[in-house]
Amino acid sequence: MSNSRIWTAALVVIGDEILSGRTQDKNIAQIATWLGVQGIRLKEVRVVADDMDAIAEAVNTLRARNDYLFTTGGIGPTHDDITVDAVSRALGVDVVIHPEAHAILEDYYKDKGGLNEGRLRMARVPDGAELIPNRYSGAPGIRFDNVYLMAGVPQITAGMLDALTGQLEGGAPLLSETVGAWVAESEIAGLLHEIERAHEGSQIGSYPFFREGRVGANFVVRSISEDTLKSCIDSLCEGLGEMGCDFTPGGI
Amino acid sequence: MSNSRIWTAALVVIGDEILSGRTQDKNIAQIATWLGVQGIRLKEVRVVADDMDAIAEAVNTLRARNDYLFTTGGIGPTHDDITVDAVSRALGVDVVIHPEAHAILEDYYKDKGGLNEGRLRMARVPDGAELIPNRYSGAPGIRFDNVYLMAGVPQITAGMLDALTGQLEGGAPLLSETVGAWVAESEIAGLLHEIERAHEGSQIGSYPFFREGRVGANFVVRSISEDTLKSCIDSLCEGLGEMGCDFTPGGI
Repeated sequence: MSNSRIWTAALVVIGDEILSGRTQDKNIAQIATWLGVQGIRLKEVRVVADDMDAIAEAVNTLRARNDYLFTTGGIGPTHDDITVDAVSRALGVDVVIHPEAHAILEDYYKDKGGLNEGRLRMARVPDGAELIPNRYSGAPGIRFDNVYLMAGVPQITAGMLDALTGQLEGGAPLLSETVGAWVAESEIAGLLHEIERAHEGSQIGSYPFFREGRVGANFVVRSISEDTLKSCIDSLCEGLGEMGCDFTPGGI
Repeated sequence: MSNSRIWTAALVVIGDEILSGRTQDKNIAQIATWLGVQGIRLKEVRVVADDMDAIAEAVNTLRARNDYLFTTGGIGPTHDDITVDAVSRALGVDVVIHPEAHAILEDYYKDKGGLNEGRLRMARVPDGAELIPNRYSGAPGIRFDNVYLMAGVPQITAGMLDALTGQLEGGAPLLSETVGAWVAESEIAGLLHEIERAHEGSQIGSYPFFREGRVGANFVVRSISEDTLKSCIDSLCEGLGEMGCDFTPGGI
């Protein structure tokens, strides 16, 4: 018997810039994709303001009901970077200076004007936390129990994820395969439903688009079983062919 | 005295494709920006799976504590489009066929093969709901009380937002102005904090970037008062000048 336990994660995106529309978030898709490869399913995301109570509420709710909780944003040097304070409050621990983070920052800024009050903020962690290496700039990410605090800048987060690759326990990765077709999804909704019902453990998502003046859709089949996935894709291609649809394995 | 009530909205983004990382969400930024212009602040966002309970929980929590609640996704013709069912359950009302939506869809599909079971799904609404015009494709959005159900495809949502422009009561819009500088935010964190503290009703956000091999940051000042905003920006430019920073009003 295979271990069919599903490992889940949640993400709290922290930042007024996302909620004002100023900044287009890229961390949700980036972290979701990375988690999928680790065999961990991103189950829910919350975007909250730079607000102590809002951050603490989201962190405490989501870390309790998921295997892992990630946050992005608010671990920089400025006054609006309050993630460490809010998460420490949520965890019920003090904020302390992490000696290794202090040393990393001292070294990183030694030719850049040295440490100052703002830069020293980035050595602050919830008491008992470990560091996540930052391969891009100085300030590290932070891990406390099942909570992972990552940067807001997507390139920096990418480096931190890279450092964590293979370090988190996960389950069987969710496999997916796509078939695209130049057909209105509303024409074949019945077919999709029928195939999903006939294949236990499969999910079929339908993602319509409008391109070159024509309607089409990509159909994404997901399963943790390779056999189920293959059988589902075969049925879908067969069904699309029978209906005379122009389809493309791999997606359009 | 001006009316200083702050109107808030929340957004529930519905869809496995966002949580799997397959699709990069664009509706958060789009709806946030549009709400800002209406004088409504986007206060929180949740991204949830195509799951009845997850959708209903998010909708009921967020509609109770915000003036408006928007959802995106899951109102199409396929079996994974369950937003209307989940929201109706959350609202405690039945799902019914809306006669006007039925007529719109009948007309829209009359030269496209006519209505079928999947297409008819898009005429289903929570009992008592009104329609939001869809200027892009046939199926309308749906309003019930303070809950607005929008499409997942960003272009379609854009058309629905356009139809709602000026229809929602809001407060004073949050004004913002940006100054960019070729400086590490960690060098001027103290200045930013000092200026924000000296200007009640202002918020200063700091958004670092790395470009052309150099570090820089954009500083976004926000306030509902034009005077506060101007005074804050003046102080910031003065402070940056005194520190010898190369800065650009309007942002870099």
